[in-house]
Amino acid sequence: MENFVFCTPTNFVFGRGTESQVGKLCIENGATRVLIVYGGGSVVRSGLLDRVRTALTEENLPFGELGGVKPNPEDDLVRIGIDMVRNEHFDFILPVGGGSTIDTAKGIACGALYDGDFWDFYCGKAKIQKALPVGVILTIAAAGSEGSGNSVITNLSNMQKLSLRCPEHLRPRFSILNPELTMTLPPYQTASGICDMMVHIFERYFNNTAETSITDRVSEGVLMSIMDEAPKVMANPQDYGARANIMWAGMLAHNGICGTGVVEDWASHFMEHELSALYGVTHGAGLAVMFPAWLTVVSRINPHRAKQLALRVLHVSPEGKTDEEIIAEGIARLREFWHSLGLPITLKELGIENPDIDTLVRNLHIAKGEPIGNYVKLDRKLTKEIYEEAR
Amino acid sequence: MENFVFCTPTNFVFGRGTESQVGKLCIENGATRVLIVYGGGSVVRSGLLDRVRTALTEENLPFGELGGVKPNPEDDLVRIGIDMVRNEHFDFILPVGGGSTIDTAKGIACGALYDGDFWDFYCGKAKIQKALPVGVILTIAAAGSEGSGNSVITNLSNMQKLSLRCPEHLRPRFSILNPELTMTLPPYQTASGICDMMVHIFERYFNNTAETSITDRVSEGVLMSIMDEAPKVMANPQDYGARANIMWAGMLAHNGICGTGVVEDWASHFMEHELSALYGVTHGAGLAVMFPAWLTVVSRINPHRAKQLALRVLHVSPEGKTDEEIIAEGIARLREFWHSLGLPITLKELGIENPDIDTLVRNLHIAKGEPIGNYVKLDRKLTKEIYEEAR
Repeated sequence: MENFVFCTPTNFVFGRGTESQVGKLCIENGATRVLIVYGGGSVVRSGLLDRVRTALTEENLPFGELGGVKPNPEDDLVRIGIDMVRNEHFDFILPVGGGSTIDTAKGIACGALYDGDFWDFYCGKAKIQKALPVGVILTIAAAGSEGSGNSVITNLSNMQKLSLRCPEHLRPRFSILNPELTMTLPPYQTASGICDMMVHIFERYFNNTAETSITDRVSEGVLMSIMDEAPKVMANPQDYGARANIMWAGMLAHNGICGTGVVEDWASHFMEHELSALYGVTHGAGLAVMFPAWLTVVSRINPHRAKQLALRVLHVSPEGKTDEEIIAEGIARLREFWHSLGLPITLKELGIENPDIDTLVRNLHIAKGEPIGNYVKLDRKLTKEIYEEAR
Repeated sequence: MENFVFCTPTNFVFGRGTESQVGKLCIENGATRVLIVYGGGSVVRSGLLDRVRTALTEENLPFGELGGVKPNPEDDLVRIGIDMVRNEHFDFILPVGGGSTIDTAKGIACGALYDGDFWDFYCGKAKIQKALPVGVILTIAAAGSEGSGNSVITNLSNMQKLSLRCPEHLRPRFSILNPELTMTLPPYQTASGICDMMVHIFERYFNNTAETSITDRVSEGVLMSIMDEAPKVMANPQDYGARANIMWAGMLAHNGICGTGVVEDWASHFMEHELSALYGVTHGAGLAVMFPAWLTVVSRINPHRAKQLALRVLHVSPEGKTDEEIIAEGIARLREFWHSLGLPITLKELGIENPDIDTLVRNLHIAKGEPIGNYVKLDRKLTKEIYEEAR
């Protein structure tokens, strides 16, 4: 096990009706003027935005609103938010939505207190020294941004989709997780979120670090719970218990507890980010295509973790099988599982009939250098092979 | 799943050599005068106390020292510490040791800022409004106090051993976890610590809450890791990887992550506390006796969790067996496992040939009322039956 630091100070307020506490929680965290950030229709239609307005008003908290966050959130809205904060002196950012909304809020939170352009943080030109506090009301179990210090934004000027990691300044002060708020999600969004959280675990689980039993077993436990509960949620979107388990699993998948002491990978995410940037696909659905393709290629070179996953999580029976057969069956079961949730597992099923693989590979290595990943270090030849495997 | 709040702001600094960072960490957390609290011999003999003194001196941090904490820590030393803080104006408490040392430090931290007697907090007469910050250097993987907001102290005047829970004020600001520091522990202490952490999980795992898949699976994962790693640690106390996994497992067992959304039990701990108070046994060893006795009795009344544990964690094969047989085999395997670590599994093996069961039962219900526990609500008849089962 590697040395590590683990600090997750976010106050998670979990359960039915918890969004009514938002005003009190903002005040406890020093808010005097709140900027609500949200996406579009569902938060408005469901009446959630109105309930948030009421909760803030009841605490005499002035607030402004910035709507219009889109999936694969873009830099332009972050800049608008930064201008709003500067002009109207907001001191607390309150995203109401999923990962895209929270990531936009985090971009605003760090950018508003920085003299240069906020993109400097995402492209690695500058390091965050301070940020406004962020509190979250989560409506989609997927990205894990409610418990992480990460944010992913797409820059429209060059179509770079880059992730920023700064746990010290970007972890939310509080996150309100009410599983009821996820009951009205379209099935495809629910399924994509489930895939996203599973791959958040895989990015950590696939490592070469020795003696990581505790981190492995916790990760395998979270994965098994997700795979137990996902079919229930798909069959009955109103199943509170299943929604609750999935929602908490999504947080655990990405707050770092599944990665303590290991050297993480993240190549699948980088490869999917290029797909999202070029073709605008849903992140979780893109991962359902890219991750098994990645696993197929890398497990030929480094099989040990793929075998462990197949045996412990995917319940492949090892009897009479070679390691190659165990791994192949594991990958097939994973693809079948995601397929059963209604997710695509090939680029073709994702609607990309003729992928421009040369451009994907070029953009990938421009953004992330060469090699990428740690479980297997991927050069251009291998990343091309993975995109081909995903067709 | 029940509504819950989960907030664990402790900064965990994990790995080899991390105790050298203690001065810097104290200063980051506002310390200007530090009271070091420790037990006895091993912290001095190993040179750890000297290294801590050096690290604080290097940061020009003045400090005082309070040694002499004993297992099952007592109220008198807490009062001495409180007087030291008041007379010498310490503003940060630094326990260097295991659960007893940390719990003593927490008692000092809350008592020093309170006008009345600190015991008021433990017996429920008063609620903590503020406490001095506490930072930890851990030397025993066991109690989980390094990540919890709990403290257990024995009052010598009435031999009450009571636990206090106040996550808001008593969670450590930082905890330094260097597995190397646990390598010189006597085998019996290592084994007792392993039992203690397992029972911390069981106290949460045995619940009647519906739809807790994610919490179950995480708990089962931590238990399986402990059971995989414990024999390695006993066979080779210098095995860094195994020590590291056990140390992190001990934290996870008690920081609350294994209890999110469930109604916890804690009857076994209450019953063991009476044993410790009356006979001065090692807490973890007392649990190795009391927990299986508790499980034997309660699983006759409420079997469902005992069966799940037997199948998922203790790897009992269900084929051709009744539920009663599966559970009995699970309990037998658990007892065998603890026995294999060198722990007692009966009161007799613990050195208590003629237990005064009437006094144990009387003290238990004076301290904790009637009934106790939640998985099965225990009246005097049942607690007596459990102590008898433990003989």
